[in-house]
Amino acid sequence: MPRPVRVAAAQVGRVDRNTPRSTVLVRLIALLEEADKQSVKLVVFPETTFTTFFPRYLIADETELDSYFEKEDAETGIVNSANVKSFFDKATQLGIDVAVGYAEKAPEGNYNTASYVSGGRTLAKYRKVHLPGSFEPFNDDPDTTNQLEKRYFKPGNFGFQAFRAPTLRHGTKSPIIGMLICNDRRWPEGWRCYGLQGVEIMCIGYNSVAWAPELLGTNSSMNRDASRQDALFHHKLVCQANAYTNATFCITAARCGWDDGKFELITGSMIIDPEGHIVAENKTDGDELIVADIDLDACQQGKSRTFAFEKHRRPEHYGVIVERAGVVEPSEVP
Amino acid sequence: MPRPVRVAAAQVGRVDRNTPRSTVLVRLIALLEEADKQSVKLVVFPETTFTTFFPRYLIADETELDSYFEKEDAETGIVNSANVKSFFDKATQLGIDVAVGYAEKAPEGNYNTASYVSGGRTLAKYRKVHLPGSFEPFNDDPDTTNQLEKRYFKPGNFGFQAFRAPTLRHGTKSPIIGMLICNDRRWPEGWRCYGLQGVEIMCIGYNSVAWAPELLGTNSSMNRDASRQDALFHHKLVCQANAYTNATFCITAARCGWDDGKFELITGSMIIDPEGHIVAENKTDGDELIVADIDLDACQQGKSRTFAFEKHRRPEHYGVIVERAGVVEPSEVP
Repeated sequence: MPRPVRVAAAQVGRVDRNTPRSTVLVRLIALLEEADKQSVKLVVFPETTFTTFFPRYLIADETELDSYFEKEDAETGIVNSANVKSFFDKATQLGIDVAVGYAEKAPEGNYNTASYVSGGRTLAKYRKVHLPGSFEPFNDDPDTTNQLEKRYFKPGNFGFQAFRAPTLRHGTKSPIIGMLICNDRRWPEGWRCYGLQGVEIMCIGYNSVAWAPELLGTNSSMNRDASRQDALFHHKLVCQANAYTNATFCITAARCGWDDGKFELITGSMIIDPEGHIVAENKTDGDELIVADIDLDACQQGKSRTFAFEKHRRPEHYGVIVERAGVVEPSEVP
Repeated sequence: MPRPVRVAAAQVGRVDRNTPRSTVLVRLIALLEEADKQSVKLVVFPETTFTTFFPRYLIADETELDSYFEKEDAETGIVNSANVKSFFDKATQLGIDVAVGYAEKAPEGNYNTASYVSGGRTLAKYRKVHLPGSFEPFNDDPDTTNQLEKRYFKPGNFGFQAFRAPTLRHGTKSPIIGMLICNDRRWPEGWRCYGLQGVEIMCIGYNSVAWAPELLGTNSSMNRDASRQDALFHHKLVCQANAYTNATFCITAARCGWDDGKFELITGSMIIDPEGHIVAENKTDGDELIVADIDLDACQQGKSRTFAFEKHRRPEHYGVIVERAGVVEPSEVP
């Protein structure tokens, strides 16, 4: 029984440190209008969609740092946040579901968050679990690419909660959705937690550096082209593999381009099918809508056979995955 | 500090249902001699190396079924099993470590097993955890490709135990080795259990069908070429992705070719580096040694940065991975 739905990744190009939200919102709304023209029902937007990716900077000024965060309405969540309300109003008006990432200032702390909004209502909220980088900067040279997510965010405290999207329902079954943010996609644990809830569409926004010699470590001989290609290779590799092993569609949306004219981010916005094949991908490194018609019924091949979890998984042997975070090596042989 | 070692995958071509072990052993020993000529120190052999991949057949005759299994010596393991002793004697004589798969008849049951043998001693034994297929045959037509591992084997009961290989030591540190068998490579859980033990070389033997319309399920429109390409794509995808996300080298060894002239198995014997790149791969679909010089120090880039587990993993959110085998979907929205 076919369960078709037309979905899209909204890739967003260059956004500078001093680009105001109002300028970004105009571009996001243009992408929503393009989605509406093409009768798209779900659009995935990037991580920190409304601003530049500020964790690359060491920001001493509290007022500037604060300006990158969204404050949610206590009752209705992000949809009524004054700074970004026009975006959600447009999505609601057009009848488009959106998954969108932003920096969240909550009473309990700051998080790297994505919300899934449908019909003016927040159906689900995810807070990034796998924060990359460090608390301390690589250095305080303003031309350096830092990765300071551990400084600016707390690790997500909601875990991996899949949910239904009833506006995309066909027949009796609403699609099962999961959200991951950027570095999360490299960690099979998060994917599997969603897989064990039957996820059918994984929504992933990201900002990934194409070239950051100060982050590459011992690989410093790598030139810019090789580094960009390798970053894109790793991005596709983990998304395709984990989509396949969890028999789920996956929509990835990049913030990309050359922020401030000097910090390059990879592209790689794609729609992946449950066999791990790329069915649509970006053609540019700017604002672009990547659209595909998908049939959620295609998840059944994997979910009922190769990855029929209840038949093949052996949780009694997986204990170490939850027993510790880090490595314990086997003893050296004398 | 470089830790170089020359390693190889021993790909093994067509082996028929009626091919005697003695014929196979001659070919395996020729591969060992080729490895010796090239100064290789570790060779990975396929799953069920010594016989054809018998779980494709529905075998009613107990004597025939029994003939595919190896009986180990209670004290010394597989190295002194009369039927295959000449192979291990040759490896010992040449000073080559081998990881080799075989069907094991043990007092506690039958297993799909791999042993790691070094200097005439079994350093480690692994029993396949993720048995694919079913207990009941697809049908009993002798031309049908069945997948009856759940009928002929018990799921492995040793879990995923990494170990050191002291004969490959450079300086003070012996390589940390892990073993997986065939379908295991599609399950990130096993990889991660080894990753959490600091694995540096993953050894994987396999038999994977290139085309089996009776196993493909609803995808039955797929022709032979598309099916072979897809099977090879999935094999590479999961090995490259899991090598990358666990920052380990990986050696994959195929049993391939057209068994009985009609059951085709994929190739894909490779050596993969800890960034997920293929550094050497097969050129034929027959007996072939795939050799590479690897430097185990290259694992440190991933293990100390992107995949520094102790800094980035969040086991408090992974509970569901060990709490149940199968899927529990979120409730339908009214």
